Amino acid sequence: MGHLLTGNAVVGQAGGPTAVINQSLVGVIQEVQKYHHIPRLLGARHGVRGIISEQFYDLNRQPTNMLELVAQTPAAALGATRDKPDVEYCEKIFNVFRKHDVRYFFYIGGNDSAQTAQIVNRLATDAKYELRVIHIPKTIDNDLLVTDHCPGYGSAAKFVASAFIGDDLDNRALKGVKINILMGRHAGFLTAASILARQRPDDGPHLVYLPERPFDLDKFVNDVESVFDRFGRCVVAISEGISDVHGAPWAEKVQVMRKEAMERDDFGNVQLSAGAGSLADYLSAMVRQKCKSIRRVRADTFGYLQRSFPGSYSEVDAWEARLVGQMAVSYSMDADHDGSVALVRLPSTTYAVGTKLVPLREVAPENAPFTKDVPDEYINEACNNVLNSFREYVSPLVGDLPKVGWFEQITQMPV
Amino acid sequence: MGHLLTGNAVVGQAGGPTAVINQSLVGVIQEVQKYHHIPRLLGARHGVRGIISEQFYDLNRQPTNMLELVAQTPAAALGATRDKPDVEYCEKIFNVFRKHDVRYFFYIGGNDSAQTAQIVNRLATDAKYELRVIHIPKTIDNDLLVTDHCPGYGSAAKFVASAFIGDDLDNRALKGVKINILMGRHAGFLTAASILARQRPDDGPHLVYLPERPFDLDKFVNDVESVFDRFGRCVVAISEGISDVHGAPWAEKVQVMRKEAMERDDFGNVQLSAGAGSLADYLSAMVRQKCKSIRRVRADTFGYLQRSFPGSYSEVDAWEARLVGQMAVSYSMDADHDGSVALVRLPSTTYAVGTKLVPLREVAPENAPFTKDVPDEYINEACNNVLNSFREYVSPLVGDLPKVGWFEQITQMPV
Repeated sequence: MGHLLTGNAVVGQAGGPTAVINQSLVGVIQEVQKYHHIPRLLGARHGVRGIISEQFYDLNRQPTNMLELVAQTPAAALGATRDKPDVEYCEKIFNVFRKHDVRYFFYIGGNDSAQTAQIVNRLATDAKYELRVIHIPKTIDNDLLVTDHCPGYGSAAKFVASAFIGDDLDNRALKGVKINILMGRHAGFLTAASILARQRPDDGPHLVYLPERPFDLDKFVNDVESVFDRFGRCVVAISEGISDVHGAPWAEKVQVMRKEAMERDDFGNVQLSAGAGSLADYLSAMVRQKCKSIRRVRADTFGYLQRSFPGSYSEVDAWEARLVGQMAVSYSMDADHDGSVALVRLPSTTYAVGTKLVPLREVAPENAPFTKDVPDEYINEACNNVLNSFREYVSPLVGDLPKVGWFEQITQMPV
Repeated sequence: MGHLLTGNAVVGQAGGPTAVINQSLVGVIQEVQKYHHIPRLLGARHGVRGIISEQFYDLNRQPTNMLELVAQTPAAALGATRDKPDVEYCEKIFNVFRKHDVRYFFYIGGNDSAQTAQIVNRLATDAKYELRVIHIPKTIDNDLLVTDHCPGYGSAAKFVASAFIGDDLDNRALKGVKINILMGRHAGFLTAASILARQRPDDGPHLVYLPERPFDLDKFVNDVESVFDRFGRCVVAISEGISDVHGAPWAEKVQVMRKEAMERDDFGNVQLSAGAGSLADYLSAMVRQKCKSIRRVRADTFGYLQRSFPGSYSEVDAWEARLVGQMAVSYSMDADHDGSVALVRLPSTTYAVGTKLVPLREVAPENAPFTKDVPDEYINEACNNVLNSFREYVSPLVGDLPKVGWFEQITQMPV
């Protein structure tokens, strides 16, 4: 058993925001209030960057109603950062902690944040400075190790599934090919969630391409043509992170193609950035060019809306994000170990979760890949779809989707 | 007073779907059920295309609960079309009407649909065939003549305003420049609605560019730099339809630039389509290139989500869309004139609307511009923003936006 460690606490948020990262923040704030041996809770502005520059919010006396409103607000209320601290940076963090008698550090973020937490923790141990460091997971990519799933993912998945429900109906109304590029550089979990949009046998997305499998352009065009021949339309979900057989990301390939063309053309030194928008345009141009029979091809890139659209969060995700924040504080109290809070799916006929604290090195191992891929069992052999078994994994995390209706029976008028 | 004209009715949907176009459809279905001298209501599949190919849904006996579900479903439940019928096409329509004793034609759509309705109506008059033709307005662009606003606009505007609330919070969390490209080829109403996202004085969008004003690239870059210098970040709303001083659309200019570069480079005949995605990438590349001090520049194109995202509709918009469908039927009963249903904003301290039937030629005039622009009074002199007075026009159409919270007082920690 740990003893009651007296001192201040710091909480920070890092990396790309999510719809529920503020739930975890409020979870931490709520729980800390219960412990009077933590006199102050400081909110680091823009994560580690706010720590080293000593920019903090005073989180002790925020009105409860305001906290609840912040909790349901997307993005990061404290501000986030993309800084990836090295040892020197972590030493600065540690020195600020020492200066302000900080004994608890709660860091909400992805892999990088887990690694930062790990380094800071090691520095404290080396200096025999008692510090509890707890990493709180979040990422819409759902690619953190150990945890069953990541807070933030369910809400982004709900946005994607909802968007595909609407987009598929739109595509039924005005038929053609529709390509949607989704977030996910290395892991295809978010793109895979698009299959939740399917209700009828001919509902889209009809094709789903994940970064876990090589993306072959000719095969893609053939796939699209074959679906189009069958249904007279085709809705496609593609991860922004798709790579070719050699592992080269397509978004970068498109960028290089354009840049080379531009440079050779000496066109006023225009640096046309690629981005996912260009990938979408490129792929739709390819379909248009190679499938002459398909007249209408459109492409969208869902972009930041996937992580920031307000009012469209998953209730389960919001609840779990709050829970991991609360549990982080709870774990830091009753034991003098550090770690990352993980969600555990419990054996149960209905969906149920618990939490556990896992060592930081398991979430951010030093000599192993940091991220989790979509398991092979969920990807079809042709590498162009996600199997229905994935629904069992993802459905409970997303919860209810918008209900839509259509005319069930198509009655041809007798002529 | 008109007499009771006995015969069947046809209803169709055309053009780009909206979140509430099915409300208008259900409004028509509901009202027609009241009139027993209309034995059949036929739903034209994919608009005029379904009429000439005699592809109809039987809409007489759809269960009420199913109708209510269809009503709240985005896209067009009957299917839409982009066909713009000429006189010959309209003659085919008229012949099918004659064949099936169709005496009522309700056409839900934009300008093109109003024009189609007008031609069909003239053919009927010339043939002394009694036919009531009523156009029911819909468009997210909000650019139809006469009507105070268009059903479909309020919901799309709500999506845009909501998206900007989230996106601005995201941009606060990870500072930089964020450019969002919005739908609107000729009219900037939807882009203008982004200003509803502003709550705090430094909330984005900080710059708003409409197609009603020429878009100068250098001025744009300067505008962005100046906002960035002031706030350390900048969120921009841009209509996809912006043109240069000579009236050339920027999206096409970007396409031509790329194509020329590609063609001259003889790069495998790759036809890189432009689309709004490329416009977004191009503008962000320009900012990145010309403002060396700005490190983080991102761009998104909201795309079809603006008109198809389920569950995020404006209640007022849904109600009004239903109303114009109902009124179309009502107008067709009590008078033997034809026309387009228009919404009228009533003089009232609170928001209130009525409807009126206006001649089709006023909505789709033969020798005058078809569309309405954002009035000059709402656009600032520098042509880079929308004035707050526009809120009074747009707020009631959008209704409540997602509530968000933030830490009101930034308390620096005493060091």
